[in-house]
Amino acid sequence: MSLLVLGTVALDTVKTPFGLRKKMLGGSAVHFSMSARLFTDIHLVAVVGEDFPAQHLKFLKGKGIAFDSLVQSAGNTFHWEGKYEGDLNSAVTLNTHLGVLSDFSPKISLKDRKIGNIFLANIDPDTQMNLLEGMDSPRFVAVDSMNYWIDTKRASLLRLLKKVDIYVANDAEARSLSGETNLIKAAKRLRSLGPKTVLIKKGEHGVLLYNDKFIFSLPAYPLSRVIDPTGAGDTFAGGFMGYLARSGKKDKESFKKAICYGTVAASFNVEGFGVERTSRINFEQLKKRFKEFREIVIF
Amino acid sequence: MSLLVLGTVALDTVKTPFGLRKKMLGGSAVHFSMSARLFTDIHLVAVVGEDFPAQHLKFLKGKGIAFDSLVQSAGNTFHWEGKYEGDLNSAVTLNTHLGVLSDFSPKISLKDRKIGNIFLANIDPDTQMNLLEGMDSPRFVAVDSMNYWIDTKRASLLRLLKKVDIYVANDAEARSLSGETNLIKAAKRLRSLGPKTVLIKKGEHGVLLYNDKFIFSLPAYPLSRVIDPTGAGDTFAGGFMGYLARSGKKDKESFKKAICYGTVAASFNVEGFGVERTSRINFEQLKKRFKEFREIVIF
Repeated sequence: MSLLVLGTVALDTVKTPFGLRKKMLGGSAVHFSMSARLFTDIHLVAVVGEDFPAQHLKFLKGKGIAFDSLVQSAGNTFHWEGKYEGDLNSAVTLNTHLGVLSDFSPKISLKDRKIGNIFLANIDPDTQMNLLEGMDSPRFVAVDSMNYWIDTKRASLLRLLKKVDIYVANDAEARSLSGETNLIKAAKRLRSLGPKTVLIKKGEHGVLLYNDKFIFSLPAYPLSRVIDPTGAGDTFAGGFMGYLARSGKKDKESFKKAICYGTVAASFNVEGFGVERTSRINFEQLKKRFKEFREIVIF
Repeated sequence: MSLLVLGTVALDTVKTPFGLRKKMLGGSAVHFSMSARLFTDIHLVAVVGEDFPAQHLKFLKGKGIAFDSLVQSAGNTFHWEGKYEGDLNSAVTLNTHLGVLSDFSPKISLKDRKIGNIFLANIDPDTQMNLLEGMDSPRFVAVDSMNYWIDTKRASLLRLLKKVDIYVANDAEARSLSGETNLIKAAKRLRSLGPKTVLIKKGEHGVLLYNDKFIFSLPAYPLSRVIDPTGAGDTFAGGFMGYLARSGKKDKESFKKAICYGTVAASFNVEGFGVERTSRINFEQLKKRFKEFREIVIF
């Protein structure tokens, strides 16, 4: 089944101990799409500015990403500047230029409105709600957010959480929104806010899934070389949602497999800057690492 | 097969958000024994002072711990004072009173010298080496240490590492001794120092095993209530070494199972102060949680 993603398409300037990339293709929806595309057809809802390079549009098209609902507006494309140091576990934001993102209102094509599998990647929660209300028949909806929105648009995010199936958060966000330090308690509290399933991403420490029926916990894929973690969480979500959209099932075993696919997809993401690595992998490579990962975690 | 443990027997004063315990029974060898006793017979090599309460000796005896090689010396028992705050992930040491530990030299009974499975729990690496050299035929030896010894007795620790099968370290220690930030790189570097297997404990984030043949990674058992993490690492090691001593096997599957038993043993430890919880569990309870844990991590 098709999968629709709302999020940012960005130009990222990123510095890590392994180098510097200026205004490379990035953004939550792009990173999501790079892994999700391996499972099903991806429909992008986003905005770019007049400065957005034609080669990037061509690149996305070449990856099979449909952008009937991509808008090009007057102004500059969203531009994030950040750096990573030491163990590369947390980004330091140096600058955020919202550009055309500041007054973005999703325009969804008639065809895209019928899609049932929806991922609301990190963007203003009011924009996420706006999109969701414009869809014909949402069947399976997951939402990601970030600390900035938890701090500045908590009420909007809480309204949105009542309407989604899955809330995807990193550990800091889960703690911040729930007010709980312990992650299991945090997950329980977030569950009570609406989403039947809470998925907490812990970066290099893996992921925890919580719902009323089961808990699932998994470490990250062990890597000795992390080049650039930007977009790892979105790449994880792309593998996760992509697998579920393709399988069409929402049972326990499918959730578990989806998390594993998300985990190995994310492991490719951090091995290169931006989408340099994920844009080059195919499903066979993903599946190969999936099997290796099983060996590493199954007893 | 029997299992010998060298380490500390201590009186611990611990404060956590859940309460305060003054001079309760603790120490690396005691925490280790509380989980290892569920698998095989445990022989303790340690020293206590004149102040060591007779009731604690009686308690250990009641748990089946053999102490033919436990020495009672003039002076006070090793006393650690510490506290945990916030997420309880790291201890703050308030005071360390070495007491009889400051000039401890292991006295091993003739019978105990024949034991082949040996765990050198955290204590001065010269004392660990001293014990190892006094054993008749070490067959399987694991060593734990701590940052204090890495900083002050690095040469002694490096000498010791050449003579052991397994080095057990937490993530901070692994990074400190190896000089590597990335844990896989750290494990490789530590492997090159001697031990065929490196086991890195990541606290609430689980554990990573590295050797030439395979990598195994496992999250921690998810708990919503952590009362006192003191001794969790030693309790983990006790479950790990206890299982391996009982099974007598050292293949990949046995290592994996041993790590899982260590993980669930540690989860009991943190649910109570000191050994309050681990001293009351039996093998059936451990096995039950082992099965629950499989459900949580297997896909």
